[in-house]
Amino acid sequence: MNKWYVGVDLGGTNIVSGLIREDGEVAARDKRPTRQEAGLEGSIRQMKDSVRAVVERGGVSIHELAGIGIGSPGPIDPFEGIVIAPENLPAWRDVPLKRIFEDEFGIRTILDNDANMAALGEQWKGAGKNAADFLCVTLGTGIGGGAVCGGKLLKGFNGNAAEIGHITIDHNGPQCPCGNRGCLELYASATGIVRWTKVRMAIESPETALTESPDMTARTIFEAARDGDDFAREMFDRTGTLLGIGLVSAINMLNVEVIAIGGGMADAGDLIFEPVQRTILERGLPGVREKVRVVPVELGEDAALLGAAKNAMET
Amino acid sequence: MNKWYVGVDLGGTNIVSGLIREDGEVAARDKRPTRQEAGLEGSIRQMKDSVRAVVERGGVSIHELAGIGIGSPGPIDPFEGIVIAPENLPAWRDVPLKRIFEDEFGIRTILDNDANMAALGEQWKGAGKNAADFLCVTLGTGIGGGAVCGGKLLKGFNGNAAEIGHITIDHNGPQCPCGNRGCLELYASATGIVRWTKVRMAIESPETALTESPDMTARTIFEAARDGDDFAREMFDRTGTLLGIGLVSAINMLNVEVIAIGGGMADAGDLIFEPVQRTILERGLPGVREKVRVVPVELGEDAALLGAAKNAMET
Repeated sequence: MNKWYVGVDLGGTNIVSGLIREDGEVAARDKRPTRQEAGLEGSIRQMKDSVRAVVERGGVSIHELAGIGIGSPGPIDPFEGIVIAPENLPAWRDVPLKRIFEDEFGIRTILDNDANMAALGEQWKGAGKNAADFLCVTLGTGIGGGAVCGGKLLKGFNGNAAEIGHITIDHNGPQCPCGNRGCLELYASATGIVRWTKVRMAIESPETALTESPDMTARTIFEAARDGDDFAREMFDRTGTLLGIGLVSAINMLNVEVIAIGGGMADAGDLIFEPVQRTILERGLPGVREKVRVVPVELGEDAALLGAAKNAMET
Repeated sequence: MNKWYVGVDLGGTNIVSGLIREDGEVAARDKRPTRQEAGLEGSIRQMKDSVRAVVERGGVSIHELAGIGIGSPGPIDPFEGIVIAPENLPAWRDVPLKRIFEDEFGIRTILDNDANMAALGEQWKGAGKNAADFLCVTLGTGIGGGAVCGGKLLKGFNGNAAEIGHITIDHNGPQCPCGNRGCLELYASATGIVRWTKVRMAIESPETALTESPDMTARTIFEAARDGDDFAREMFDRTGTLLGIGLVSAINMLNVEVIAIGGGMADAGDLIFEPVQRTILERGLPGVREKVRVVPVELGEDAALLGAAKNAMET
């Protein structure tokens, strides 16, 4: 008989659930827009409804579940199962989500942060499938990270491991809201590439189609680069190089074999992957740098669901 | 009945062995200067003799051993048990030490690098005793590191984890022999503090007793600082700050609760620990920085022996 798990991904935009068999088969999915206007109670109700929906769609009874795994934006406390204060869920403050779910369903529930869950999912069934030492990086507004070391999720003593966005690459660099200076995410996130592109345009007035884009985003820069704009290409090259520099520090700490990159910026393909790979070859330790592979993520929305289910399985 | 292990620490200067009970009691020790002039065969013979000596001193027979653990300077291959090419053991090139020991004694033998073994030993019985997430840093000519994550030694996919000396703190910094730029060990090792002290003296001609020390070492600078030399104190403060910056990146990746610092520079006490702690409080992530403890190592020479034995126990 199969064991069944439910994985839930709580996000500021959507709540996504999956009914997952112990071999990683996703038997049913549910996705609903997070109704933040309904407040904390409202979105907790949405999560519960979503769990019930996938279980029903999969033809399984709630009582048959071996566990429920939840991924939530951080900061969270994975040991107590508390959502502490996610930036994009302002109504959520110190919510004991593990207890709420266990009270509701009578099923053991495990919580961790969404970046860790995506990493665990990709390592189980996606880009990191054959790598026991794996890092997953998401380039968005910030840079999120999750790591699997020796086949186990890297959690740390209070659930704050793999915060690769807050590795310093320039100790004299600009102040980061986190308290540190020169953090990787100030340079290599979607926000970072826009910031530095504007800075260089202000200082150097380069010839570029971007001059016509007052509402510049990482996508605008990508489209200009794709259309042959030299300045936009250079900005991607610089961003990929700085990302590579941060990844070399991560590699030298974790000695991961595979790094998967996701998030909007990863859609830029070689524009970002090529300088990352070049930088790792230039700066990595001999005996390591030739062996590390950098690849795109593979699972999309399923990654966090699978990871949350796997986390419930292993914790 | 007790299980017995032997831990061996192969160094360029000494070969040290210990007979270790499964509860971590060191029942016998042996230490002999590495006779590098006797070549590879000679030092392998010394290691074997040292193992026989501790076993005999402890009143145990070789055949009663449950395992032998060896710590060696890197690079090594921990999975195959091969010493690849340690800088300070020039005769040692691709030596299959695991196989050599297993052929000699008929006892399962596990090899790993000395920094990892020291970390595992300190986590088992020393400065990291109650911390499942622990980083051990040695400030010497370079900066060595070893980490325990979730109670397990962090090994990585090919035995090169926790190379904290090669975290970048300034991506435009000087070239490091490792291939990277601005590596932590260029600033915060014993060699690093001497280099930057000389640079500042050349540029700024400060008033300092160090002007009288043509053969300056980290110890000379420490003695001047201890005797109240402002410039020397400032150099320690700067070095500790830069070390703290590197440690913040390591904390943000590994989320370790305790960091132990050893090596000659750690003897400087508060001169180095105070700026390290201040920097972690200034730059660490909220919710983490207040909880991380930075302490001196506790076990001295026993750390690597205990770690090597523990590694044989767990591998």
